[in-house]
Amino acid sequence: MIGNVIVGQSGGPTAVINSSLAGVYQTARDRGAKKIYGMLHGIKGLLDRQYVDLSQKIRSAMEIDLLKRTPSSYLGSCRYKLPDVASDKATFEKIFAILKELEIEYFFYIGGNDSMDTIAKLSQYAEEIKSPIRFIGVPKTIDNDLAITDHTPGFGSAAKFIASTMKEIIRDGLVYDYPTVTVVEIMGRNAGWLTAASALSKSEDCEGVDLIYLPEKPFNIDMFITRVKEISASGKSVVIAVSEGIKLPDGRYVFELGQHADSVDAFGHKQMSGTASFLATKLQLELGVKARAIELSTLQRCAAHISSRTDITEAFNVGGAAVKAAFEGETGKVVVLKRVSDDPYMCITETADVRDIANVEKKVPLEWISGDDHVTKDLIHYIHPLIQAELSPIMVDGLPRHLTLNCN
Amino acid sequence: MIGNVIVGQSGGPTAVINSSLAGVYQTARDRGAKKIYGMLHGIKGLLDRQYVDLSQKIRSAMEIDLLKRTPSSYLGSCRYKLPDVASDKATFEKIFAILKELEIEYFFYIGGNDSMDTIAKLSQYAEEIKSPIRFIGVPKTIDNDLAITDHTPGFGSAAKFIASTMKEIIRDGLVYDYPTVTVVEIMGRNAGWLTAASALSKSEDCEGVDLIYLPEKPFNIDMFITRVKEISASGKSVVIAVSEGIKLPDGRYVFELGQHADSVDAFGHKQMSGTASFLATKLQLELGVKARAIELSTLQRCAAHISSRTDITEAFNVGGAAVKAAFEGETGKVVVLKRVSDDPYMCITETADVRDIANVEKKVPLEWISGDDHVTKDLIHYIHPLIQAELSPIMVDGLPRHLTLNCN
Repeated sequence: MIGNVIVGQSGGPTAVINSSLAGVYQTARDRGAKKIYGMLHGIKGLLDRQYVDLSQKIRSAMEIDLLKRTPSSYLGSCRYKLPDVASDKATFEKIFAILKELEIEYFFYIGGNDSMDTIAKLSQYAEEIKSPIRFIGVPKTIDNDLAITDHTPGFGSAAKFIASTMKEIIRDGLVYDYPTVTVVEIMGRNAGWLTAASALSKSEDCEGVDLIYLPEKPFNIDMFITRVKEISASGKSVVIAVSEGIKLPDGRYVFELGQHADSVDAFGHKQMSGTASFLATKLQLELGVKARAIELSTLQRCAAHISSRTDITEAFNVGGAAVKAAFEGETGKVVVLKRVSDDPYMCITETADVRDIANVEKKVPLEWISGDDHVTKDLIHYIHPLIQAELSPIMVDGLPRHLTLNCN
Repeated sequence: MIGNVIVGQSGGPTAVINSSLAGVYQTARDRGAKKIYGMLHGIKGLLDRQYVDLSQKIRSAMEIDLLKRTPSSYLGSCRYKLPDVASDKATFEKIFAILKELEIEYFFYIGGNDSMDTIAKLSQYAEEIKSPIRFIGVPKTIDNDLAITDHTPGFGSAAKFIASTMKEIIRDGLVYDYPTVTVVEIMGRNAGWLTAASALSKSEDCEGVDLIYLPEKPFNIDMFITRVKEISASGKSVVIAVSEGIKLPDGRYVFELGQHADSVDAFGHKQMSGTASFLATKLQLELGVKARAIELSTLQRCAAHISSRTDITEAFNVGGAAVKAAFEGETGKVVVLKRVSDDPYMCITETADVRDIANVEKKVPLEWISGDDHVTKDLIHYIHPLIQAELSPIMVDGLPRHLTLNCN
């Protein structure tokens, strides 16, 4: 008989983080775990003894399938970084006391960088106090900025939403017979993976994005305006993808330029205007073109209705592989994806030392950025398999059905 | 033998305006039209002799099916209102000369208010000069603000996108264990139909939108803040839908308040900040809550990947019915939808005098708005059938495939 399991979700949600939860839950159940708890709002909720017995909540194969299709974190999330043991041992003692109460033997945490830090600290502390509890991290983030793993679950679905939406925005943007400019702002403060996904819009039936700016390279406004002027001179409408985090050569964020030194809003506060909004206004003024800004905003991370089946499946698999690893005795590890073949695409799971992945940020390699304003074929080739195939939403009453804690 | 046909698209695009084009094209072809021309960029393009022979472009049943799934205007669009005959007879003479060159007998125009005005003027002029050409309007607009017709093709798909996306935003917004506020800005300068569609998010698996503000009622900021304060006092996160066009009791748009009297941006220009962005900042300052703004922007009108099959079918049908009416001798008419039964939902097409629909704006009836901040069950009941069922996108290489003029 396998002992009790607890699983939590942390950080910003994705479209498929619940598929990893489904993978942990179903695999732990199938492999004979006694009880499977879910911590509510991650480790922060656990510290307040907030948890549920998942077997009381997820009772059918249908519900597991709904869970895979439900965006955001079913168990709720937190943005909480564990303190260092040296500075705050009490927090660790409390966590382990609660885990003992619940007779937990296996602890899984689904999240990004900070969550991997949590796994690193808890597994280290367990070693120090000779606790037999095993701690395994399950990676997720739409940003794709985790080290070691080929890519992160969550990225493929966000990339698919972005590429699909760019195709639709391009159709919409090219409709009039005079040149317009559309600047689309995509998430990614330091890493441009998501913005790069906009390049996948180019296909037999689509002109694609004209210019792509990633945060990995400094952004030159004058060259930007010159490029837009060149393209629109032919009478063509222009569609541009910019990462929210692009910076000037002097290190300032582009969106900071939207703020006049003495300018305040009606409340007397300086406002964080968006990168796309600043650039669209700038183009309008400098080139006299009709320019508009679109922020894809949180839709990028929650649009489960157009998620990638490849991503959903891999998200489920990393959850399942985490359970297998823990049950086989591993701890202080994180499950990573390893691409064993590019064409045909094949990917397997492995485990890596969590200390090698926590707090490391993986950016787009400079050799995958072409010039200042586009990406290379290699980068497109890397993302391409990750957006393939669909898992149709289960539509009820005209809308995608989800599984939620409060409503079932 | 039936003579030549010409069809154009005008105004802002929708997710299903091409399904109406498919309806016109297929019905005209099936009923034996000699040639079927498409004007490029509407009447404005036609004045420059820009047109295509559609039978050379759309050659298979598969391409018709792709056309139904392609957002935006396949033929391009224009925002051009015909002058009055009295002030500019030359324009009318030119149009009719071009129609004569092309041996056109039937003229179809797919669009909103302004396009119906075009049909009204052309059919009136035809009557005056005793031209036998028949002019029929095909309605479209996501805004649902056309008179006489029960609803407009394009509205159902936009409503389905909004309700689906609101469900996803609500899941995303409720993820943390402290109250956050999300203000979502939805299109509709004067009519609140689209914003009202956010109410459909409430279902067995979704808490729904907490507050809904339509432009039909004056917006009271103090009451708004009080309501948000009340709801978030319970620790609950709040999701709010606001129409971009909500106005203060004194008639100013809410987004105008985002502009400090002396405030200018880095370029020395006053900026049009968004309604949602203003309200989110206001809530943050007044209540100290974490608030964010999301603008659904043009995604509302181009998200063909989650369109309503009911809407696509009706859009096709109004196109087909326009051809039938014209071929049977009608002119100066517009095809409208008539709901003959609510439960089960059944809708048929009829024709109406285009002068009764042109330049009239249909707003949400005040009796369908509940208090200041929600909509009634009757309004939800009215929209509900319009978002039902799906026409799955044809996915190629992981993305929805479209039919485009330049790429085929």
